[in-house]
Amino acid sequence: MSRYALTIEYHGGPYWGWQRQKGGPTIQSAIEDAISSITEKHSGVHGAGRTDAGVHAWAMVAHVDIGRPFDQLRLMAAINARLRPHPIAIKNCVVVADDWHARFSCLGRSYEYRIANRKAPLALEHGRVWRIGKPLDHEKMHDAAQLLIGVHDFTTFRSVHCQSASPVKSLDRLDVVCDGEHIIITAEARSFLHHQVRSMVGCLSYVGSGKWSKADLQAALDACDRKALGKNAPPDGLYFTGAKYTV
Amino acid sequence: MSRYALTIEYHGGPYWGWQRQKGGPTIQSAIEDAISSITEKHSGVHGAGRTDAGVHAWAMVAHVDIGRPFDQLRLMAAINARLRPHPIAIKNCVVVADDWHARFSCLGRSYEYRIANRKAPLALEHGRVWRIGKPLDHEKMHDAAQLLIGVHDFTTFRSVHCQSASPVKSLDRLDVVCDGEHIIITAEARSFLHHQVRSMVGCLSYVGSGKWSKADLQAALDACDRKALGKNAPPDGLYFTGAKYTV
Repeated sequence: MSRYALTIEYHGGPYWGWQRQKGGPTIQSAIEDAISSITEKHSGVHGAGRTDAGVHAWAMVAHVDIGRPFDQLRLMAAINARLRPHPIAIKNCVVVADDWHARFSCLGRSYEYRIANRKAPLALEHGRVWRIGKPLDHEKMHDAAQLLIGVHDFTTFRSVHCQSASPVKSLDRLDVVCDGEHIIITAEARSFLHHQVRSMVGCLSYVGSGKWSKADLQAALDACDRKALGKNAPPDGLYFTGAKYTV
Repeated sequence: MSRYALTIEYHGGPYWGWQRQKGGPTIQSAIEDAISSITEKHSGVHGAGRTDAGVHAWAMVAHVDIGRPFDQLRLMAAINARLRPHPIAIKNCVVVADDWHARFSCLGRSYEYRIANRKAPLALEHGRVWRIGKPLDHEKMHDAAQLLIGVHDFTTFRSVHCQSASPVKSLDRLDVVCDGEHIIITAEARSFLHHQVRSMVGCLSYVGSGKWSKADLQAALDACDRKALGKNAPPDGLYFTGAKYTV
């Protein structure tokens, strides 16, 4: 058996999310089915994170053990050939140590959330950004976002379906920048709770439109209560952008 | 009759191009049909340029005369509502003078061409970039592109179907920059020949991969012969990004 680390790009729109489940197409099952058509001798695919239905990835990381020896670039090409016409692509494939684990060895995850701040409907970016018609003040959003940095109980920003043992997480980065009509939010942490990024972005949109003050965001965090959540942003604008490892 | 200038975004993938034609869906016909469902009293839609099948626009400009008085923002909303589910959106709508013409008053057009320089298949940008697996030297591409600036006979870079009276055009800008795995080419001119941007990009890709030298590009230009064309780039990566006017 050799272990391979895969870097994966996908459009989350057609899928029920990353994780294999009965009843609907998922990214994990599409990749596992592609690998099974090459060789039945494999471990299944283990991702650094799980993304929800409609969430995209520029660079998800996963590993798979394969019983037959493969050149890593040939393996990548073979999986990609079998993934067609799925909007899923293996961008990189490298052999790693047998004890390297995409999820448990991961030291940090990063996400990007894209908002199109415009009145007009979306044409070129339908399903890929969250359109907000009301003008947003990105500087106020960035300023308020900084109060979420550090170690906090993020219960307010956590889905009721979250399986994490604890709601206490450390948030390393939450930057809000403006690029033309787009507002781009970058989030980095060792790990995130289920829906945490979307919930933080939803509340920041309230700050940007003036519906919430910075103090309202602080109160929502302090409440440690899902009912204090202002809004959960839609999956369309969310991208898994990277996983960090020591190797 | 009042004349309105429209700024239009569209995904060119599902269409046979901008211009209305029998037998297939076009952007012009989709917009005209939307306006006809609001009022039959209109002139038809006149664009600043025509884009080919599969070519996109961030900001095409067009005008339309409408016989019934409309608030410009209400007109925009009404057209957008009737354009659904087309990937076409009116981003701006303003009343202009009766002699203002989207095509004839236009002083300059700009295009962007996006290349994804990577081995992996496309997942998130399928149909929206030209993927080239072979590594490209964007600095060599930019350097060679500068020899196309100025007034030239662009016959080599002109489709045999081009309806322009003359192959002589003035090219104002042709910049090649690198942004991560993307190579972005920006072209500006008063007007372009049919296929000119795609033909210039196709030949620049030869320069980037080392298949052509700068001298080969010069020879192709000097030949004034379509047969000297290296390659015509696919429509997927091309975006109409703007039209300039004095108003």
